[in-house]
Amino acid sequence: MRGMMKHFFYPSAIAVFGVGSGSSNLAKNIIHNCLEMGYTGNILPVGKNPGVVFDKKIITNPEDLPANIDLAVILVPSHLVGKYLDVCGSKGIRHAVISTGGYREFIEINNSAEVTLLETAKRHGIRFIGPNCIGIINTGSGLCTPFNPINTKNFKKGTASIIAQSGGVANQVAHSFSDEHIGFSKIMSIGNKLDLDEIDFIEYLMDDEDTKQIHLYLESIDNGRKLMEAAKKSTKPIVILKSNVSRTASEVAKSHTAALSNNDRIVEGALKQAGIIRVNTIHEMTVCAKALRLPELRGNRLVAISLSGGFSVMLGDACEKHGFTCPALPESLIHKIESFRRGGVIRMTNPMDFGDIHSIEALIFALKECLALDNIDGMVLSIMYGPEIAKMFGKEMTKLDKLLDIFTQISKEANKPIGLSFFAERRYIEQLKAVNTFPVFNDPEESVLAIKMLWDYSRRKLIKQKSGKDEQSRIQFKENRSIINERSALSEYESKQFLSSYKIPVTREIQVTNKVSLIEAAKIIGYPIVLKGCSPDILHKTEKNLISVNIRNEDEALIAFRKISSRMNGTESSILVQEMVKGKQELVVGLINDPHFGPCVMFGLGGIFAEILKDVSFRVAPLDPCDALEMINEIKGVKILGAVRGMEAVDMNILTDILITIGKIGMENENIKEIDINPLIISGNKPVAVDALIVLKEPQE
Amino acid sequence: MRGMMKHFFYPSAIAVFGVGSGSSNLAKNIIHNCLEMGYTGNILPVGKNPGVVFDKKIITNPEDLPANIDLAVILVPSHLVGKYLDVCGSKGIRHAVISTGGYREFIEINNSAEVTLLETAKRHGIRFIGPNCIGIINTGSGLCTPFNPINTKNFKKGTASIIAQSGGVANQVAHSFSDEHIGFSKIMSIGNKLDLDEIDFIEYLMDDEDTKQIHLYLESIDNGRKLMEAAKKSTKPIVILKSNVSRTASEVAKSHTAALSNNDRIVEGALKQAGIIRVNTIHEMTVCAKALRLPELRGNRLVAISLSGGFSVMLGDACEKHGFTCPALPESLIHKIESFRRGGVIRMTNPMDFGDIHSIEALIFALKECLALDNIDGMVLSIMYGPEIAKMFGKEMTKLDKLLDIFTQISKEANKPIGLSFFAERRYIEQLKAVNTFPVFNDPEESVLAIKMLWDYSRRKLIKQKSGKDEQSRIQFKENRSIINERSALSEYESKQFLSSYKIPVTREIQVTNKVSLIEAAKIIGYPIVLKGCSPDILHKTEKNLISVNIRNEDEALIAFRKISSRMNGTESSILVQEMVKGKQELVVGLINDPHFGPCVMFGLGGIFAEILKDVSFRVAPLDPCDALEMINEIKGVKILGAVRGMEAVDMNILTDILITIGKIGMENENIKEIDINPLIISGNKPVAVDALIVLKEPQE
Repeated sequence: MRGMMKHFFYPSAIAVFGVGSGSSNLAKNIIHNCLEMGYTGNILPVGKNPGVVFDKKIITNPEDLPANIDLAVILVPSHLVGKYLDVCGSKGIRHAVISTGGYREFIEINNSAEVTLLETAKRHGIRFIGPNCIGIINTGSGLCTPFNPINTKNFKKGTASIIAQSGGVANQVAHSFSDEHIGFSKIMSIGNKLDLDEIDFIEYLMDDEDTKQIHLYLESIDNGRKLMEAAKKSTKPIVILKSNVSRTASEVAKSHTAALSNNDRIVEGALKQAGIIRVNTIHEMTVCAKALRLPELRGNRLVAISLSGGFSVMLGDACEKHGFTCPALPESLIHKIESFRRGGVIRMTNPMDFGDIHSIEALIFALKECLALDNIDGMVLSIMYGPEIAKMFGKEMTKLDKLLDIFTQISKEANKPIGLSFFAERRYIEQLKAVNTFPVFNDPEESVLAIKMLWDYSRRKLIKQKSGKDEQSRIQFKENRSIINERSALSEYESKQFLSSYKIPVTREIQVTNKVSLIEAAKIIGYPIVLKGCSPDILHKTEKNLISVNIRNEDEALIAFRKISSRMNGTESSILVQEMVKGKQELVVGLINDPHFGPCVMFGLGGIFAEILKDVSFRVAPLDPCDALEMINEIKGVKILGAVRGMEAVDMNILTDILITIGKIGMENENIKEIDINPLIISGNKPVAVDALIVLKEPQE
Repeated sequence: MRGMMKHFFYPSAIAVFGVGSGSSNLAKNIIHNCLEMGYTGNILPVGKNPGVVFDKKIITNPEDLPANIDLAVILVPSHLVGKYLDVCGSKGIRHAVISTGGYREFIEINNSAEVTLLETAKRHGIRFIGPNCIGIINTGSGLCTPFNPINTKNFKKGTASIIAQSGGVANQVAHSFSDEHIGFSKIMSIGNKLDLDEIDFIEYLMDDEDTKQIHLYLESIDNGRKLMEAAKKSTKPIVILKSNVSRTASEVAKSHTAALSNNDRIVEGALKQAGIIRVNTIHEMTVCAKALRLPELRGNRLVAISLSGGFSVMLGDACEKHGFTCPALPESLIHKIESFRRGGVIRMTNPMDFGDIHSIEALIFALKECLALDNIDGMVLSIMYGPEIAKMFGKEMTKLDKLLDIFTQISKEANKPIGLSFFAERRYIEQLKAVNTFPVFNDPEESVLAIKMLWDYSRRKLIKQKSGKDEQSRIQFKENRSIINERSALSEYESKQFLSSYKIPVTREIQVTNKVSLIEAAKIIGYPIVLKGCSPDILHKTEKNLISVNIRNEDEALIAFRKISSRMNGTESSILVQEMVKGKQELVVGLINDPHFGPCVMFGLGGIFAEILKDVSFRVAPLDPCDALEMINEIKGVKILGAVRGMEAVDMNILTDILITIGKIGMENENIKEIDINPLIISGNKPVAVDALIVLKEPQE
């Protein structure tokens, strides 16, 4: 893979197909951009008509192309792409950027142009990016294949690389990263990803020496499991901006890059599991890139300091909003800091209003001492800045690079992050950002968001470190097996027997076929009991009135038995005698098979919570204990699992075990399509599956 | 008020107290700032020691001050403020900015310095801003009283005015507004607001010719009702950044400006009711200021257009997130726009990917035609920009002012807003913003947020216009009256009788004292019935086991009666015979008296929703139908009031009437402290108060 990718990113010579000398020709911009950016390899323009572009003669007969061309960039109408790929093949070109649009994003999937493209590429062993993309910008080689004219002069070289499923976004991240002084190494626009996709590029970038952070803009995640696996293996942070999350956007996304929507609740869970940081805008992507330059955050306890009371208040609000705490500082430290005060009219707290102290020594003292505290994991700091104010503070503050060195040093020594922002005229903020030795955020709220992103990245890793082992490796799978059953679903009884074989707690129950066995079974179970009509063909027992609860004696049992039997067309073959489980907290647990992520576990509160309010969470199977606990805590109604309203708190060990087991079942049984445990009732403090349904895949699925 | 305020904002001469010639003296910065900003009035420095600052001799004997000074700016230690106010009084100075800190924000409320300050000011009839503030920046008069050195050169003059309860924020908004090319007229830092407060300044700015938008940064809202009244009267938009919303921030807010926390749920409701736009950061404040320059938004249906597919997708996501819809465009229009396509490989939808069309004429055509549609209320538009790209589009696009004129004209003609952003290098975005003839937002998401703010502002106004009258004026209040009752609470029976007198539907019920009347009452009510122990002293009936439900006959009634009586210490004097109301949807409705907003109505779903999940909404009484409907729709669980799970949809007219009536009761009955209707059960589709409690104020309250 790495060898192959070298031809894409560091080609020794490229051929550009579709070039013309007319003013509206787009392919010639590719040559312009490469020259601008300092690409030193040979560039060979190929076109229909003779002419000269940028002092290069357009080759009209592809046979005239020299050997040893690494990469073709193709921007010709889609019906001609196959023909030119054939030329590439015959000339030994094995790598292509196919910029041309008009494929599945415009007409139907498997349209003839697409089929020809794929067939031709396969025949010649050509790997390609696209179609419908702008290809590659590599500050390392000067390769710059977008077909819009780009000003590459302001591009900053650095160690962030970005994979983008949109040409416009690929262009913009080049500018946005550079404008924020975050240099980039490689940007790739991957279009319809008909051959190479984000996974291929992530794997390449994971090994790429010039890349330290991997950012992605995706409109669709096609193979979610592969993405998660790659991310889990990566030692470099991965950041994703996943758009196309709304119904409103899905239409245009389809015609943009043929992107199909994902279930965003599953995406949300999967990214957390894989330790991928999610951002919401291109600007947030740059914020995250800056944050990732700071030391790791090892907890959620911050000190918030500002040189203005108002900004301290806003920092405090932002910290709490993002789940941070600001612990009280030791009295002795407070007294020492207060001794620096000038007017002596501000009390020191955390968040701290430092507005009354005009001394850089005092500031340095406070920062160092606060970060040295064991119960403090990091800091957010907002400083007023202007040349006049700097003078008041001392000489060190007037030189911007010296000023930033202070924070670099303090943060490094403490090995804890400082989220730094300034309130000032924008030109000074921009100057401070441009120094670029220490990350400077645009305002206090952004600095807290940045630290929050660090936390998103390190929290999971830390939990795993603390637990001393990779929990997931403990989960052992049996070989994949199939439930032998010719129907499309198991009955409630069969479903529970199956779940019980995995040690999921289910109601005690006996299936009966006649009145004699009914009465016997009822005695064994013990009144009160529940009777249910039971058959895999009967999925909605409540609506069909096939459930009778709280049956207190034989007489009531017989009456209920008769009623249910009659509603089941007179058959007495399948009635379930079940213990009556009482409990106020009802949960739902399920397994679904997502087209992009495979088996996923679902969790929610029962009743209207899951059904109407959609307050559910997902994780991709298999789950480790950390996943299970996180998905429980993620639902809005989680509080009712605590000791509230006189109820016992739910036994979290059993509950997490159930979620992990459901995931395991999904991994081990390839013909299970869906599991629905609804309700899972908390009896005392222990969950019991009161109703359950397992749906099997159709043979062809 | 207006005359008085003139002395604060346009003083003919000012005296600055606390000036010294030493390098660390702060008061002299006030003089520096005024001179920098071009204040032309006389400035008189007053200080302990003789000296010269900015060519002005320091006056050491206040008796030497001339007459006709409009304003004193005082920055001396707090124990000396009284003395200098006395001097002001004797010299006829009736207006002061008291910058000094160290009062209630630092020590206790009503500390001696504060008491002296207030007494002295009152004695001399002096009105003042502060203490603990930086006073006024007025681009109209050049007055600039902050005591930190400020570079006023880049300040932009304009029509936004800002009231800030923080000196640091006051400073920063001056820079942030100017940097975003939003000129400002007046900025006032109001500190502890011991005399003049935000209401006084809002009222002044409402009449101020130079002010067209009123922005506020507040850490506390002390008199919420007055704020709402002022806002409702204002013809100018009011924008609030309310901080100090978290527990983390409250400590530092207290020591910053003595700000006490508000119940933010009530603030949220109150601001909506008053048509005040709420923003979350200083940057959002500038976004809002720009948005308010656009034409009014008269609905939530937008067209989203971008010159990149990726940005169309992100615009679509942002539109949906903020509650906008993007209706499908007429086929005929789609065809016309598609006829401009170049490659012909992009399908036109809404959101629209315009990336395939490189013509300004085509863009103008599309914008005009889309905005002309009856079912479209506004537009968000994101354009790729760079000199090379502009050339491809046509000459008009290369000149930035000409380019923006296009949007100004289209937006004006259609009288609909366009949220405009560019994706480009930042320098071009900044150049476009600097043209300043049409608002340019920083990115697509920000442009949608801007349009959302417009919607926040106009939605309520439009609803009222459509209903053809000011709904609130229809609510008639009786004179304030008191419930004559010597206890602190009414019994359930008394509470419901009272609510019923206001036509709030309550359960049919009869209070009985013995078994004979019990049986009679049960017959009248009809089985099944509920029995409840009833007394104002018994607030928690459920916990005390004083409720028996689903009583089906005389025997059960007698048994329940005995049990409840025995639990009430044998007294039979107060048992309630109540109809048994069945219904799956349980609501809670209440009235509370907030210290800052007075009577407020609370609404939520019953059970764990209100109690544990805190899914409740508030509005300040009195409510109009729009308030009532909004507060119902605001709760997360609102969906269960619809026709779900086989239940009927709730009768919204009755429900909104109940909320309005509870507000009316709060306004009319000054000794009601609290009303708690819990549960309000939906029976069929109609709400019935099943339990209710009215708590009265203590006489001293």
